[in-house]
Amino acid sequence: MEKTITVLPGDGIGPEVTGATVQVLQAIEKRYNHTFNFQYALIGGAAIDACENPLPEDTIKLCSESDAILLGAVGGPKWDQNPSHLRPEKGLLAIRKHFGLYANIRPVKAIPALLEASPLKKEIAESVDLVIVRELTGGLYFAEPRKKTKDYALDSLVYTREEIERIVDTAFQLARSRRGKLASVDKANVLDSSKLWREIVEEKKQGYPDVEVEHMLVDSTAMKLITKPDAFDVIVTENMFGDILSDEASVITGSLGMLPSASTRGDGFGLYEPAHGSAPDIAGQNKANPAATILSAAMMLREAFQMETEAAAIEEAVFNVLNDGNFTSDLQVEGKRVLSTTEWTAKVLEELDSEFVSDSIMFTYV
Amino acid sequence: MEKTITVLPGDGIGPEVTGATVQVLQAIEKRYNHTFNFQYALIGGAAIDACENPLPEDTIKLCSESDAILLGAVGGPKWDQNPSHLRPEKGLLAIRKHFGLYANIRPVKAIPALLEASPLKKEIAESVDLVIVRELTGGLYFAEPRKKTKDYALDSLVYTREEIERIVDTAFQLARSRRGKLASVDKANVLDSSKLWREIVEEKKQGYPDVEVEHMLVDSTAMKLITKPDAFDVIVTENMFGDILSDEASVITGSLGMLPSASTRGDGFGLYEPAHGSAPDIAGQNKANPAATILSAAMMLREAFQMETEAAAIEEAVFNVLNDGNFTSDLQVEGKRVLSTTEWTAKVLEELDSEFVSDSIMFTYV
Ligand SMILES: [Mg+2]
Ligand SMILES: [Mg+2]
Repeated sequence: MEKTITVLPGDGIGPEVTGATVQVLQAIEKRYNHTFNFQYALIGGAAIDACENPLPEDTIKLCSESDAILLGAVGGPKWDQNPSHLRPEKGLLAIRKHFGLYANIRPVKAIPALLEASPLKKEIAESVDLVIVRELTGGLYFAEPRKKTKDYALDSLVYTREEIERIVDTAFQLARSRRGKLASVDKANVLDSSKLWREIVEEKKQGYPDVEVEHMLVDSTAMKLITKPDAFDVIVTENMFGDILSDEASVITGSLGMLPSASTRGDGFGLYEPAHGSAPDIAGQNKANPAATILSAAMMLREAFQMETEAAAIEEAVFNVLNDGNFTSDLQVEGKRVLSTTEWTAKVLEELDSEFVSDSIMFTYV
Repeated sequence: MEKTITVLPGDGIGPEVTGATVQVLQAIEKRYNHTFNFQYALIGGAAIDACENPLPEDTIKLCSESDAILLGAVGGPKWDQNPSHLRPEKGLLAIRKHFGLYANIRPVKAIPALLEASPLKKEIAESVDLVIVRELTGGLYFAEPRKKTKDYALDSLVYTREEIERIVDTAFQLARSRRGKLASVDKANVLDSSKLWREIVEEKKQGYPDVEVEHMLVDSTAMKLITKPDAFDVIVTENMFGDILSDEASVITGSLGMLPSASTRGDGFGLYEPAHGSAPDIAGQNKANPAATILSAAMMLREAFQMETEAAAIEEAVFNVLNDGNFTSDLQVEGKRVLSTTEWTAKVLEELDSEFVSDSIMFTYV
């Protein structure tokens, strides 16, 4: 297959982690006989520095001519005092909005080699394998009217049926492709928007008889993510609840530096990026952990290009490298080897090589 | 001192846990030469059964003639299908509203004897000692306009300066009486109501130079409550964020059944109640854990009656009983004695007795 991927390195450690990821994608390209055309563009602080715009027209144009977008990270202290239209994060909000990327998908899976770094007891964290599907373009963070005076402030939480239906469909389909369990999270005992949300989930579930649905309140969910996180398969929720719960969930397995994410519009096209930030304190030092970005590229292969085998090959390589005791400095697992970004990436490439060799041998012998 | 306490036993295990607590308060009354006048009234399901009103006029009258209110819990499956004005929880919302109880105070403190029950690793949970101050009467759960059609829903998040100022003052004063650290939680990077909140905290902090203030985003706070909960002293936040974060915080130390709470109007008058619910499944079986209600009574003595010594005596008695290996069945700590509600309460009363005896001996010898 031939695919065009726009790479947006962004700020901080962004260039290093996307650089490592492109190497991994090039290895996949060769071994599975695909053609990946990489094109690079600016976003965030880097774009502000170059052309006073966190999302330049040229970046939008390249992205719209591509099959998927791989993003590093945006932001840093250099731009923290900028006026709000010149903040790096504006670039992210703008690209989500421009392409209508309404579904934020955040998998959280326990990695045995990293459980020591989990704040939870091993027996609670070890079987965690969940995905949070967060509505990304509606709700309290975007709706009008909003108002602020010296003595009064108003924000509005608005959802339309269409906005809820499409994200709920995304989640049902994902649940169906996994363990068939969906937790729909709301605050239907007090919010009208949550009542509408719950009604629509009830209607939609008729179309997915193979998926078991449970309605949960957001406050109970915040508890259960700590006490019984392994009880979850897919969680679907609105924008603000998803913001809070996905960040909460990101720390339970101790592998925050390992978490991929995708923001899509339901058809696979979208932005694939690590869940972590731009870590300006270690930028340019060859210390960054590229695993989350590499795993985001695996999600891209699976969701955007339907390359399941290739995606699984990357995931297996990453987990094997970790299980062999190879870590970057962020993981702080005692008594383990600490590698640089380039050294660690080289291990993943080696691992992919040896997977490929053993696959070929199998093929020859069969 | 002479004080009048209205006791609202409520539903489920409410009568058992308030019954135990009144015994403890009577012991304090005798030993410290106070007069506590206890008066009883109905709320919740019990009130609905008796007079078709979850908060009868008579209850309001008795409460308004008292110095503090001790509540058990409300709710149960019996009333779950009732129309919304005949739900037990309405009684709680109505009493908070009637008396303007805008400040919900939820302490979470690690209890060494219970750390085995915590989902967090011991080294993370063992030094937790925080209090969440949640604004209870404003924000998204109450504001107008709200609207719901088949295809659209709106909720409004409104805060006035006055509502924010009074809760922020409550939190600053509490921080000053503790370790002098305040985390103010908002989502000021996206919400106008949070921007106003943050401005007011910045203004107010001039008046509390002895308190160190940090602004945190709600999503980062949800993470840090798991990764570094012992970094918090007092947390102050708006209603919905407080709902989510206080429930999240309630499970980190493994002592959910032990957590007291208060809902006050800033002057100490208010509702003192356990953070847990009515547990209808074990109601009437002499199995309930009265500790959270007993500790709520200690909060009442401290906050409403300025009886610091008496409050500390209760807390010490409860912790000693637990440290001696006495548990109720909810705590499920392996290899420990499991006592009934009345047996466990008797241990606390004994402990108070012996504290009192040793105090008297000290007094005699000095
Ligand atoms: Mg977030
Ligand atoms: Mg709650």
